[in-house]
Amino acid sequence: MIYLDNSATTKPEPSVLQSFYQASERFFANPSSIHQLGGEAEKLMAKAKEQASELLNVHRDEIVFTSGGTEGNNLAIKGIALEHQGRGRHIITTAVEHSSVDEAFKGLEQLGFDVTYISVDENGVISAEELNDAIRDDTILISMMHVNNELGSIQPVEEVGQIAKQYPKLFFHVDHVQGVGKVPLELTDSGIDLCTISGHKIHGLKGTGLLYVKKGTVLYPLFHGGNQEQALRSGTENLAGSVSLVKALRLIKEREHAGIKHMYMLQRILRKKLSEMDGVEVNTPEDAAPHIINISVPGLKPEVIIHTLGERDIYISTKSACSSKQTDESKILTACGHGTDRSTSALRISLAYDTTEEEIHIFLDALAEAIDQLKAVLE
Amino acid sequence: MIYLDNSATTKPEPSVLQSFYQASERFFANPSSIHQLGGEAEKLMAKAKEQASELLNVHRDEIVFTSGGTEGNNLAIKGIALEHQGRGRHIITTAVEHSSVDEAFKGLEQLGFDVTYISVDENGVISAEELNDAIRDDTILISMMHVNNELGSIQPVEEVGQIAKQYPKLFFHVDHVQGVGKVPLELTDSGIDLCTISGHKIHGLKGTGLLYVKKGTVLYPLFHGGNQEQALRSGTENLAGSVSLVKALRLIKEREHAGIKHMYMLQRILRKKLSEMDGVEVNTPEDAAPHIINISVPGLKPEVIIHTLGERDIYISTKSACSSKQTDESKILTACGHGTDRSTSALRISLAYDTTEEEIHIFLDALAEAIDQLKAVLE
Repeated sequence: MIYLDNSATTKPEPSVLQSFYQASERFFANPSSIHQLGGEAEKLMAKAKEQASELLNVHRDEIVFTSGGTEGNNLAIKGIALEHQGRGRHIITTAVEHSSVDEAFKGLEQLGFDVTYISVDENGVISAEELNDAIRDDTILISMMHVNNELGSIQPVEEVGQIAKQYPKLFFHVDHVQGVGKVPLELTDSGIDLCTISGHKIHGLKGTGLLYVKKGTVLYPLFHGGNQEQALRSGTENLAGSVSLVKALRLIKEREHAGIKHMYMLQRILRKKLSEMDGVEVNTPEDAAPHIINISVPGLKPEVIIHTLGERDIYISTKSACSSKQTDESKILTACGHGTDRSTSALRISLAYDTTEEEIHIFLDALAEAIDQLKAVLE
Repeated sequence: MIYLDNSATTKPEPSVLQSFYQASERFFANPSSIHQLGGEAEKLMAKAKEQASELLNVHRDEIVFTSGGTEGNNLAIKGIALEHQGRGRHIITTAVEHSSVDEAFKGLEQLGFDVTYISVDENGVISAEELNDAIRDDTILISMMHVNNELGSIQPVEEVGQIAKQYPKLFFHVDHVQGVGKVPLELTDSGIDLCTISGHKIHGLKGTGLLYVKKGTVLYPLFHGGNQEQALRSGTENLAGSVSLVKALRLIKEREHAGIKHMYMLQRILRKKLSEMDGVEVNTPEDAAPHIINISVPGLKPEVIIHTLGERDIYISTKSACSSKQTDESKILTACGHGTDRSTSALRISLAYDTTEEEIHIFLDALAEAIDQLKAVLE
């Protein structure tokens, strides 16, 4: 199998799954139970949190374990909006967000919030200056992604963080789901108040994730209850899930430097070969994250190419898995100014640290062959 | 180990954990991905949902997989409140709910909702008539538990369902977390619109659960995004978690009849012996669910008894794990009219199908001994 859909989800690392299994079996007690078994579970929970905070270079009370990226994004966005609406109801995001951010904003519009969507250039990147100009007295939140999930474009979140710092009443949330292990991001002194991380994008398990919540940031919880997770996310802790997430994060951090370099090397091969391929247009900008290369093959239906490759046990995707069934058109490519021919024919190839050069060459040959065959059929 | 804290959490059934492991390994693709691997994951997801719906005797589109009981309760309550607030902002619950319901209501009060808390009698049970009288023209939601998590008291949810049916604009939510496998509840034609189930209370895994959402019930999602789970709960599906939950539910349903009978037998032994024990008062009413027996030992600190038993590898709890660290006083026992001596000295013994009579006798002897010892120290 050649799996090149790592931006949709990754194969769980066996040792991560093993950690989940062992923690579920041996530390099954409720960490909130006051007996000794509960105490042991609580200690392991504290250790997991401690490790997560060390890996991210933040304080342990700033880690909130969640069920994944969508929860993290929704908790950050709605948590700020519902808690701080007394101060203002204007919130800012961009035109190219993942559906879990975009739809959360639309959900808040339904509740009466006023949203500004910052546009992007042809590379899918916003202008920090335009964003700065959009800030008003009643703005309480800026939410944007670090790395775009379809194109791999990197947003100037460091720059926006510096802008956000000058508005102490405004909160800044970064959706870092596609950035972890691909484009390092320092949280301390960044101006970032909230940052979403997902487990299953880094060879962890589905149903796991974390939200960084800077000390002193008050959120309206999505889950009220027993006040677990600093009262920001109640519910019996998924201890095994948290332990597995921390393990996945640790393994990624250990390999990050070499992994990024390796993926950039593969991306260069892909970019060169794909650019030379007849009828293929590369959508991912030159200075993008290393793990994504997005192309369009105008005139060919992307799902047909995907299925043709799938028959050869090679897996790539259209745009985001989280919007792949809704319409053919990529909202992101449209936002970049591309016409329908290109925005409805996009394919995304996304890499992992373990993707090999050989796999890339096999994929490239298979893609060229598939395009030739399909074009011949259409002629 | 004699584990008698099954209302806080249960030991995962090995085959359930195995299902999780296998699904994570073999079906790791994103069910929303359109390639063949995604298709296989999607098929397994559909099968899990089909099985869940058969086990609960509902339609498959009425199953929403969640991360657990707290999410289910919050999604039901806030989902109705935020979506239907245009029609009215009055919501009803009871004085003895789990913190995930109680705090969700308090959270909604913070947003301007008007809450009526129905009181309970000395057995912890509400009066359906009193609840009926509380319904107003602007009432949009009734939320209550089926089985109380501290006392085991059974609420008249069937009767309330019949009342709710006469108000077609009002939604009725049942927190069935402590009821599954202990007190059967039929959902079809029950008047119940939403029903919460948690995985880890039935030997499933933490981080899993489901919410029954009756067809046609519109909720404001807590998680907006890629429109998974009938658009009521977006986010990449935790397929392995859902598969494991369905397995846990199936195993419970298979053993339910015999299991309930067995636990009632053990509960009778406990009730008889505990009633005869010097200084012990039984708080659980006669007609309660089979798996809980709650007692008070006035004058003795419950945490001391718990730790003394813990040293002998016997585990029981104070009240709810989800509120056990907050204060010594049981809100539930106070609501039943008990004084501080009794409400601050409560212990909960909670059973599983596999709890043996021998374990109960060992526990009873150990408890009697612990009480004697501690009393001797105090004299």
